Amino acid sequence: MSDAAPAHTLAHPILTDDYATEWMGLRVLDLGEGTATVATTLRREMLNGFGIAHGGMLFAIADSAFALACNPHSPDEDQASSITVAAGVDVNFLAPAHEGERITAVAARRAHAGRSGIYDVQVFACPDGHPHTPAEPGRLVAEFRGRSRTIPRR
Amino acid sequence: MSDAAPAHTLAHPILTDDYATEWMGLRVLDLGEGTATVATTLRREMLNGFGIAHGGMLFAIADSAFALACNPHSPDEDQASSITVAAGVDVNFLAPAHEGERITAVAARRAHAGRSGIYDVQVFACPDGHPHTPAEPGRLVAEFRGRSRTIPRR
Amino acid sequence: MSDAAPAHTLAHPILTDDYATEWMGLRVLDLGEGTATVATTLRREMLNGFGIAHGGMLFAIADSAFALACNPHSPDEDQASSITVAAGVDVNFLAPAHEGERITAVAARRAHAGRSGIYDVQVFACPDGHPHTPAEPGRLVAEFRGRSRTIPRR
Amino acid sequence: MSDAAPAHTLAHPILTDDYATEWMGLRVLDLGEGTATVATTLRREMLNGFGIAHGGMLFAIADSAFALACNPHSPDEDQASSITVAAGVDVNFLAPAHEGERITAVAARRAHAGRSGIYDVQVFACPDGHPHTPAEPGRLVAEFRGRSRTIPRR
Repeated sequence: MSDAAPAHTLAHPILTDDYATEWMGLRVLDLGEGTATVATTLRREMLNGFGIAHGGMLFAIADSAFALACNPHSPDEDQASSITVAAGVDVNFLAPAHEGERITAVAARRAHAGRSGIYDVQVFACPDGHPHTPAEPGRLVAEFRGRSRTIPRR
Repeated sequence: MSDAAPAHTLAHPILTDDYATEWMGLRVLDLGEGTATVATTLRREMLNGFGIAHGGMLFAIADSAFALACNPHSPDEDQASSITVAAGVDVNFLAPAHEGERITAVAARRAHAGRSGIYDVQVFACPDGHPHTPAEPGRLVAEFRGRSRTIPRR
Repeated sequence: MSDAAPAHTLAHPILTDDYATEWMGLRVLDLGEGTATVATTLRREMLNGFGIAHGGMLFAIADSAFALACNPHSPDEDQASSITVAAGVDVNFLAPAHEGERITAVAARRAHAGRSGIYDVQVFACPDGHPHTPAEPGRLVAEFRGRSRTIPRR
Repeated sequence: MSDAAPAHTLAHPILTDDYATEWMGLRVLDLGEGTATVATTLRREMLNGFGIAHGGMLFAIADSAFALACNPHSPDEDQASSITVAAGVDVNFLAPAHEGERITAVAARRAHAGRSGIYDVQVFACPDGHPHTPAEPGRLVAEFRGRSRTIPRR
């Protein structure tokens, strides 16, 4: 991890035993009402045979940001009886990302009606060690639009 | 791996140094003209905090099948100068998948025009050890529709 | 309308007072369990400024086929208390269609779980007067994937 | 048309002979670099059998706004040799719209790379006669994400 990368990670109840997010090394940089920002560094196990980020790995990073944005980080009693999951996603891959780059995914709620929601997640890549600020997250590599559905917790 | 699971894996040029596909433990069960079938077993690192398959991991399995279907497995000289990548995907998650289940992704070309293509990938889950045949791949857990774009190899 | 075009149209309860479908001149050629086929001829009011079919009009033809496929044509008492509507659609436009061409939309259910469904609609164009059979609907101009949701009738 | 509705419409080269947009009665309220706002009033021919706006008609309104946003309104010589068309769209329908309501579609470019672009179009409905301002376009009824492709003019 570069000196420029934020080392902290915020707590969120859905991250307990989230082994995929842990495997990806995601750090939670920011959480708000319907928003979340996560970041990680692109490792070799996240590359495809063309030597660039596997689309599924960029998707997985965005999907974790989406889940963090659409589930409350401090659920009240009412919210604790349900979970919000991805019903579907439309994603566009705009540019390749490379090993060692820092990937940042910024999720924000766009619309909400009843138990359905729409969240946009933008995925950015920037060279590791590059000064990284929320205002300059790097170049846009994917646009992810998630459709959420709130369902009873089993 | 269960006795019922196919142990073999087919060769495809894009799998060389595809570290993500290797990490997922994907076996290539079938390759045809515009088609591919892959399978793996759902490991703990592929689960989210709800104790079910992380959407990004199901997506990544489907995305590898998509890449295998839209790049030729025996490219001629003309084809060797280009690669086909995912421009975008629309995915619907239909049911959860669980640790230890066998995940099968079946990709097939649906339409093709110039340098663009549309591929459908169906993702199935079935209990590990369950007799597994192409005709009975398990229950449908995701429908993935990929948009491909053929570009010059750098 | 050419001699080759089917003149008949089938009845379906949701077509009563469906003024948009009437305006489009849609004929219902076939209805089945989760399937529907409609056709019309592309008129001047369906063209955009590039002199080809307006994407919205091709979409509207497909959307009517989708609605016919996901609502029962002979609803039982239980079904009569709910309606099924489009929650969303992903559509790919593959080729242009021209004034006077016959447009056929073929809808089929692909997946169904609880109150949600996925339907694929293929949109074809063929020169008017061209012998037209279900087996040869013309060239593929759009691929439409609809996400349905069943809700209580108001 | 209500007194509150803007009566003016702006000129754009792609609107010449755009018979579908003319049929929909679209007024062009605003045009910018990669942006466009259009509005119309929902007529009976735009309704489906459930007595609400036909999804295809809401889509068509949004699609016209998309086309106006992704084609330059004052093309230079270089731009005049190409056109930008919809390669595909993902749309989510969020709420019904009713006869006589004013429908406003606001399109904006979200990303652009080479000959491909992503545009978001938000579709709003508000009661006719309701004071209508850009800041208060009404309730959100659809979210449309268009994928554009620039191709040579034939």
